[in-house]
Amino acid sequence: MPSNKSNSIKIYNSLTGKKELFKTITKGYVGMYVCGPTVYSNVHLGNLRTFISFDTIYRYLNHIGMKIRYIRNITDVGHMVNDSTEDRISEKARIEKIAPMEVVQKYTNDFHDTLKKFNLIPPSIEPTAQGHIIEQIELIKTMIGKKLAYEKNGSVYFDVIEYNNSNEYGILSKRNIEDLIHNTRKLDGQSDKKNPQDFALWKKAESQHIMKWHSPWSLGFPGWHLECTAMSSKYLGEKFDIHGGGMDLKFPHHECEIAQANACFNTNPANYWVHANMLTLNGSKMSKSTGNSVLPKEIISGDNKLLSKAFSPSVIRFFMMQAHYRSILDLSNDALVASEKGYNKLMDAIDNLDNIKVSNKTEFNVKNWISNCYKAMNDDFNTPILIAQIFDIVKFINLVKAEKAKIKASDLKDIKTKLNEFVFDVLGLEKNKSNTSNDKIKSVIEILIELRDKARNDKNFKLSDKIRDDLKNAGIILNDSNGKTDFTIN
Amino acid sequence: MPSNKSNSIKIYNSLTGKKELFKTITKGYVGMYVCGPTVYSNVHLGNLRTFISFDTIYRYLNHIGMKIRYIRNITDVGHMVNDSTEDRISEKARIEKIAPMEVVQKYTNDFHDTLKKFNLIPPSIEPTAQGHIIEQIELIKTMIGKKLAYEKNGSVYFDVIEYNNSNEYGILSKRNIEDLIHNTRKLDGQSDKKNPQDFALWKKAESQHIMKWHSPWSLGFPGWHLECTAMSSKYLGEKFDIHGGGMDLKFPHHECEIAQANACFNTNPANYWVHANMLTLNGSKMSKSTGNSVLPKEIISGDNKLLSKAFSPSVIRFFMMQAHYRSILDLSNDALVASEKGYNKLMDAIDNLDNIKVSNKTEFNVKNWISNCYKAMNDDFNTPILIAQIFDIVKFINLVKAEKAKIKASDLKDIKTKLNEFVFDVLGLEKNKSNTSNDKIKSVIEILIELRDKARNDKNFKLSDKIRDDLKNAGIILNDSNGKTDFTIN
Repeated sequence: MPSNKSNSIKIYNSLTGKKELFKTITKGYVGMYVCGPTVYSNVHLGNLRTFISFDTIYRYLNHIGMKIRYIRNITDVGHMVNDSTEDRISEKARIEKIAPMEVVQKYTNDFHDTLKKFNLIPPSIEPTAQGHIIEQIELIKTMIGKKLAYEKNGSVYFDVIEYNNSNEYGILSKRNIEDLIHNTRKLDGQSDKKNPQDFALWKKAESQHIMKWHSPWSLGFPGWHLECTAMSSKYLGEKFDIHGGGMDLKFPHHECEIAQANACFNTNPANYWVHANMLTLNGSKMSKSTGNSVLPKEIISGDNKLLSKAFSPSVIRFFMMQAHYRSILDLSNDALVASEKGYNKLMDAIDNLDNIKVSNKTEFNVKNWISNCYKAMNDDFNTPILIAQIFDIVKFINLVKAEKAKIKASDLKDIKTKLNEFVFDVLGLEKNKSNTSNDKIKSVIEILIELRDKARNDKNFKLSDKIRDDLKNAGIILNDSNGKTDFTIN
Repeated sequence: MPSNKSNSIKIYNSLTGKKELFKTITKGYVGMYVCGPTVYSNVHLGNLRTFISFDTIYRYLNHIGMKIRYIRNITDVGHMVNDSTEDRISEKARIEKIAPMEVVQKYTNDFHDTLKKFNLIPPSIEPTAQGHIIEQIELIKTMIGKKLAYEKNGSVYFDVIEYNNSNEYGILSKRNIEDLIHNTRKLDGQSDKKNPQDFALWKKAESQHIMKWHSPWSLGFPGWHLECTAMSSKYLGEKFDIHGGGMDLKFPHHECEIAQANACFNTNPANYWVHANMLTLNGSKMSKSTGNSVLPKEIISGDNKLLSKAFSPSVIRFFMMQAHYRSILDLSNDALVASEKGYNKLMDAIDNLDNIKVSNKTEFNVKNWISNCYKAMNDDFNTPILIAQIFDIVKFINLVKAEKAKIKASDLKDIKTKLNEFVFDVLGLEKNKSNTSNDKIKSVIEILIELRDKARNDKNFKLSDKIRDDLKNAGIILNDSNGKTDFTIN
């Protein structure tokens, strides 16, 4: 199978704006860092899409035999509320009247529970910002030593103008430093900065602030951007392969990470910058205040007025995989209903593979099909193209099942193997287990209903009543209407 | 219900060796710290018992309306391998050829997965030792400042002799300092200590050591005992209500915690020291090397030669609850089989509550029963006595079900409420969902087997064969032997 070699993968690099051949620093090994959630609220559906996108990339690289160290952090300090001096977690702690670390724990647990439901593989390491204060302090010392950061009133800022003299601030987001200077507002509490576009590396804590640590400059806390530089360099080294995150993190977060890494280690930290695009809902940006919003758990429970029913995590994941990670994806009830149909069709075809008659020839180019599946994923992890390929084989399986096409035993075996690998290992879908066991009990009940129908036709009412009563004792209620019988399982 | 008041709880305090009235520092609030696992291997069944014991205490305090801040830490650095200078996590990282933080992640995930299966409620905060290096450094500075700790060659040790001059080292474990001095061996690499019983607060890292941090004394790592003092004081204050852990932690770990807290804050950190007893297997200590060992996941899967079958997490939890947390508990296959019977009987009785005929009087003292349940738990969380009470009501429910006893509607309602609260909220048991759905399909298949038997007796082989074939198509295989029919569900 020639096309699954890791040296033929192309990845779109946000840094260059081009698809590039993926060459790892060490052959066969990948270092990948993905910006994780700020744990101050239930994980947002848009963020979930980002994490599922990188989970699929991780799964594919694993599948082709690469050894990946995958780091996804937890931001539990330093992420400020827009235009304020309050940390998002501190704000939530104030609102919920619990300790900041209780906020962190509550939403970290929610994050893990949700990701588990959607079948994401845990990263190799999931470090926290609070767990790396010393490392962040050491980086700040280095930047001050190089005169790329300065202390003022107990806080430390990165000097963007000074940095830009020998580097290029805006290299990732393609922003012009001059425009940035003119467009940045002067805000209260930021008057310590030399220039408004400078960003905080360390903030002196106000007296009522709970999350604070000793440092050479003040009792305070680190700036948000710094943690990722500290943790990625600690666990992946100063230079690694892939840095991922949501599109919204490109600026300022990733831009600042590049500046910090250049300042500390004289290098852009990652060779490939990969960004997952956003998710809209019914054509518009999601927003709690307008009511155009849905949480992951609400899709699973169906408990949201924008949805007609519940959808399983695998259906939602399948829906997301039908779009490329770099495209905007619009979620709607109709789109989910359509995806559910496709997902069920796919699962039925996989089940059918066990009940197929083999013959002495195959009327399908299986080798070519496998090669096309790899080509799709090698082309910047193009899952919608992979799914199109998968539905080509579904169509063929259904033809064979209907005895309108033929397949050899060896090809059936290859299709089984590769279909299972792509659907379950790479796309991360799961068979709906409760459905499987439900299907079984339904089939058995249908046998009894058929026997009962026959008994009624034969006027053997003793038997038909016995079947109804026995089922009732087992908690299954038969309902006759319009000459048909359905049932309820209690 | 007078006996459920929080001010009537008695707790056995290891510090005084007595059951004492539980008085919290702040009325209605409880601060509880429990020593968590060192994440270098799959969680041990004995440790699981400890965590289930404290989960039950947490659940009961919650049930009676107290507001608890429950801290259970993760030890991810500093826990040394016996008699060596190697950290347990570093050792495992060396053996498994992955980064120490990958070891931490792997076994933290396993720990969380296992606890979830056994229905433990996550603590309010689950802090990590690595996440609190700065706090530990600050405590060391304080102890050096008070001359209760000293630095030698980049490492810092607690001076037990000096401490014992004004305090009592051994107060919890009832050990005599003189005996300790004579019984402590001189070990290699510990020659920096003034006295062999001194313990490390900070260790200078050897050059190949990966887990190390900057400190005023060396690039190194904290000693194991220190983290709990740092995290408990950070999240619960210098003095809190309950400190829990396994019996094996009494010495040296908890003894050292008391010494550190006295040194830093002039107080024993907790008012009540609570210790859960050990678990043996077939009468002996568990040990991997002798093969007398079973992992939590092996009991759930039944995949261990010491077990005849699989047991559900709720059955295992029920088994553990049948012993008091301060008693040694011996696990064996027979004991689990017996617990499963009891658990099933209990679940049946709870199901029966929905199908009971009420009458105009109650032949059972329900108020007294409720009061006795609370009395059991208020007496040092005596779950075996609570379970005995629960089986009194099970017996009564079964009498009523058999129409040999009577119950009023209002009493039935009270029994339902309290039984559900004690069984599910306090003891943390769960209904076995997969069993419920399995039981249903089994009942339906049994109806078909009966119909088939009748058809065979009537020589109606067309029908009997049809039933067998239809079931086969639904994935259920009938096996006839010795005139009886059983089945396999594929």
